Amino acid sequence: MRWRGRWPRWRIGSNIRGEEAVSEADCIFCKIARGEIDVEVVHDEDDVLAFRDINSKAPVHVLVIPRQHVANLEEVGKLPDGVVKRLFEVSSAVAAEAGVTEGGYAVRVNNGRDAGQEVFHLHMHVMGGRKLGMP
Amino acid sequence: MRWRGRWPRWRIGSNIRGEEAVSEADCIFCKIARGEIDVEVVHDEDDVLAFRDINSKAPVHVLVIPRQHVANLEEVGKLPDGVVKRLFEVSSAVAAEAGVTEGGYAVRVNNGRDAGQEVFHLHMHVMGGRKLGMP
Repeated sequence: MRWRGRWPRWRIGSNIRGEEAVSEADCIFCKIARGEIDVEVVHDEDDVLAFRDINSKAPVHVLVIPRQHVANLEEVGKLPDGVVKRLFEVSSAVAAEAGVTEGGYAVRVNNGRDAGQEVFHLHMHVMGGRKLGMP
Repeated sequence: MRWRGRWPRWRIGSNIRGEEAVSEADCIFCKIARGEIDVEVVHDEDDVLAFRDINSKAPVHVLVIPRQHVANLEEVGKLPDGVVKRLFEVSSAVAAEAGVTEGGYAVRVNNGRDAGQEVFHLHMHVMGGRKLGMP
């Protein structure tokens, strides 16, 4: 089954921003990392996974996530240093694989509502294949 | 002296994208990191520096850079793992200091021309204080 809907939102608690805190059992990206939801994986390694964004905003639009659940950048300290670095290295590798290294690409973390964060599992958007203005 | 112009571009060589390769001696962000150009620093530590973007695109717009010169994400592997993690932690700290943690903020790396990279020293844009759509 390939899931093509919007990322659902389970409301279990709330954090500083009034956003839902989501348990790892219910987190959609944890489910993806566990292979429980079928997505188009483009890079797979021990601690980091990359897959196509189903709500693509650019010709190339891939999400890069740590398998370990951290909600956002305020929790990035929980990740091992090397995993944080791999997020960037995998972003670069994904861009190369997609053929957008030469043209250029943006890597973006949306952190919180104003920035449009929809899933509260830290993830990086890798976008390329067209001119990307600043938001 | 506070410098308020556009980031200048020194053309010394070229890389895969036909972009200028810039020596550390001439790199504008290296100069800022060495204190040779006066900017509004908002966070200063051994390996990471944060300062306001002079071409601000949002009410809060800060650049977070490693002091060590790496041109872009293709070179991120040259940085120690802990420094890469600090780039994210400092981004979060800068957002908190600016009061945008609750509202939310975006952290973005523009990598190459299509994404609007202007200075070829890896840097993260921390933007907040308004709704930030995707580019």
